[in-house]
Amino acid sequence: MKKISLLGATGSIGVQTTDVIRKHPQSFQLYALAFGRNVEKGMQLIQEFQPAIVVVQSEQVKDALLQHGYRGKIYTGIDGMYEIATHPDVDVVVNAVMGSVGLSSTLGAIEANKQVALANKETLVTAGHLVMDAAKKHNVSILPIDSEHSAIYQCLNGESKKEAHKIILTASGGSFRDKSREELAGVTVEDALNHPNWSMGAKITVDSATMMNKGLEVIEAHWLFDMPYDHIDVIQHRESVIHSMVEFVDKSVMAQLGTPDMRVPIQYALTYPKRLELNQTKELNLVDIGTLHFQEMSLERFPCLRLAYEAGRIGGTMTTVLNAANEQAVDLFLNGKISFLTIESFIERALESHHVIHTPNLETIQQVDEQTRALVKSYVN
Amino acid sequence: MKKISLLGATGSIGVQTTDVIRKHPQSFQLYALAFGRNVEKGMQLIQEFQPAIVVVQSEQVKDALLQHGYRGKIYTGIDGMYEIATHPDVDVVVNAVMGSVGLSSTLGAIEANKQVALANKETLVTAGHLVMDAAKKHNVSILPIDSEHSAIYQCLNGESKKEAHKIILTASGGSFRDKSREELAGVTVEDALNHPNWSMGAKITVDSATMMNKGLEVIEAHWLFDMPYDHIDVIQHRESVIHSMVEFVDKSVMAQLGTPDMRVPIQYALTYPKRLELNQTKELNLVDIGTLHFQEMSLERFPCLRLAYEAGRIGGTMTTVLNAANEQAVDLFLNGKISFLTIESFIERALESHHVIHTPNLETIQQVDEQTRALVKSYVN
Repeated sequence: MKKISLLGATGSIGVQTTDVIRKHPQSFQLYALAFGRNVEKGMQLIQEFQPAIVVVQSEQVKDALLQHGYRGKIYTGIDGMYEIATHPDVDVVVNAVMGSVGLSSTLGAIEANKQVALANKETLVTAGHLVMDAAKKHNVSILPIDSEHSAIYQCLNGESKKEAHKIILTASGGSFRDKSREELAGVTVEDALNHPNWSMGAKITVDSATMMNKGLEVIEAHWLFDMPYDHIDVIQHRESVIHSMVEFVDKSVMAQLGTPDMRVPIQYALTYPKRLELNQTKELNLVDIGTLHFQEMSLERFPCLRLAYEAGRIGGTMTTVLNAANEQAVDLFLNGKISFLTIESFIERALESHHVIHTPNLETIQQVDEQTRALVKSYVN
Repeated sequence: MKKISLLGATGSIGVQTTDVIRKHPQSFQLYALAFGRNVEKGMQLIQEFQPAIVVVQSEQVKDALLQHGYRGKIYTGIDGMYEIATHPDVDVVVNAVMGSVGLSSTLGAIEANKQVALANKETLVTAGHLVMDAAKKHNVSILPIDSEHSAIYQCLNGESKKEAHKIILTASGGSFRDKSREELAGVTVEDALNHPNWSMGAKITVDSATMMNKGLEVIEAHWLFDMPYDHIDVIQHRESVIHSMVEFVDKSVMAQLGTPDMRVPIQYALTYPKRLELNQTKELNLVDIGTLHFQEMSLERFPCLRLAYEAGRIGGTMTTVLNAANEQAVDLFLNGKISFLTIESFIERALESHHVIHTPNLETIQQVDEQTRALVKSYVN
């Protein structure tokens, strides 16, 4: 029985994680959960799973839970998340919070020798060197919850990492894959949120449309698999059936395939190195699908991907700026403050004005993160 | 340094094996080789690799080698092959001879605790239970040299076999994939030998056209991976880019891909569990390929595949009959004695007249094999 701390329980990945836990009561127990301010969904989960500890975003949300009759242990904020990420009774920490707010909990979980299932890719983008150094030092496995990185992890299973020559990330192309640069000028928030293959949260769906999601994944892959940027390719694959691939030194290519269902990588991260049945997921049927398409991913068509490669290659705080600027710009877009194409130009502006600091510590990263957000906000005024 | 015995050195797989050995002189030594009657090619290999022992098919070929000035150790026939398959100095035995003549050497190599690289699929088809029992007993790895089974082996690497739910073999469709049953009536030997993707020997190319090759592979997969026939699917995949797949209990599907180059599975069988560089092989480029197609494999269109599943499910000597009848019928076709469609009808006739013997020993298998060949030959007169 693995005891799980779930950070970001009411989000898209969080809810699907509870679904995986629900199907395997003999294997998993939801020991603690953290969520932001979705009191209704949070109370549902609390009543169903009876966690030992609950963490919410603020005192206000805590009061709301108390009013709903919750009488258990309750903490708030980043400190609360850190508490359940490092709790001695916990075996696995699932970090499914959005944005760089998940960083300290991830580091805490690693230092407390937990198995870490990481859906929070910003953690690696903004502080990959700190996270991977800690994981190495504490001999902790970081299992990615992300269809692409879970695919790569599965392709590398049983292999020697130094015999892996190249990572090939696949990209559906996002909501706007069939639009020209000119057509992108007038797209709305609603258009952006209409992803062709995957049902996900708003921020990541916009990131898929700008291709920044793939850019963040390139940086994530660089850190998770210790792979130089020149050995990480991105190709467009409309059907999202091949979730990603690894080419080895003998030119053999391993790929992981499946129907688009995040419960597969979530469960894999919880059960690794074993696999459990997952009956409710649809079996892949390539005959029904019939055809798989592959095309080049253009860095001109998707400048956010180019920016991510550039920031990644420079390294240091440059990827912190990339991530913070993107989070802020997407927030502005989702709140109707800027147009879709302004997202990429704000990010590029922030990157251009930044003087990189190499191998930054956690405090420096947090400072640069805050400064970048303030800077990008200031672009609107 | 691994010392290799290569059986079937002048055939298609044999020559490609010597190419792999040639590229890695630090890793491999061709210690002994066996070939049939291609004296010219055989002498070339002897001069280049200077093997300690040579085996040829007959005294006649032996005399020819002596006339060519060969003065080293030389044996003949099946006994000679057995000798080098079990020689104490040998680490790996590559069995690339054609047909069931390779069986006793395979069993000998297993009993002598060699790593066995097996291109001779008839060995498993005709006597899978004996081979796999011996491999289990002697804790010997049988590494398949076959793009499909090597793919499956790679997909299962690092995984627990009992978590593998289904094997999905891909089939290019062979030389006649775009012909109707009616059009098959008049095809010639030349037509049959024109395979769309792979350059292979004559017998296996005809087997690809009848789809018996895939049928033999289904039986081979059954034995190699201990998988029930109901959990082995065959799908048509024109491009031969995905070499085969394994679906696990969590619905995750692992696949191995590559350009069609037999040196990749050959080298993998020699280097396993490691991989070595293989520079001369073309890198897979999915963007250049653009599209992968998948369609159902029809058992009506390809009766040989149906016969293989039926014989496999019955088991015992039924697969010996399947294999021997096929070898004899293909031989008759290649020699212009029967038409292409007569191959399948001869095999079906032989299977229908056979009374199965369950768990046969080696002698019984050899008897049934000989009787079947004689029977199929008699159909022509």
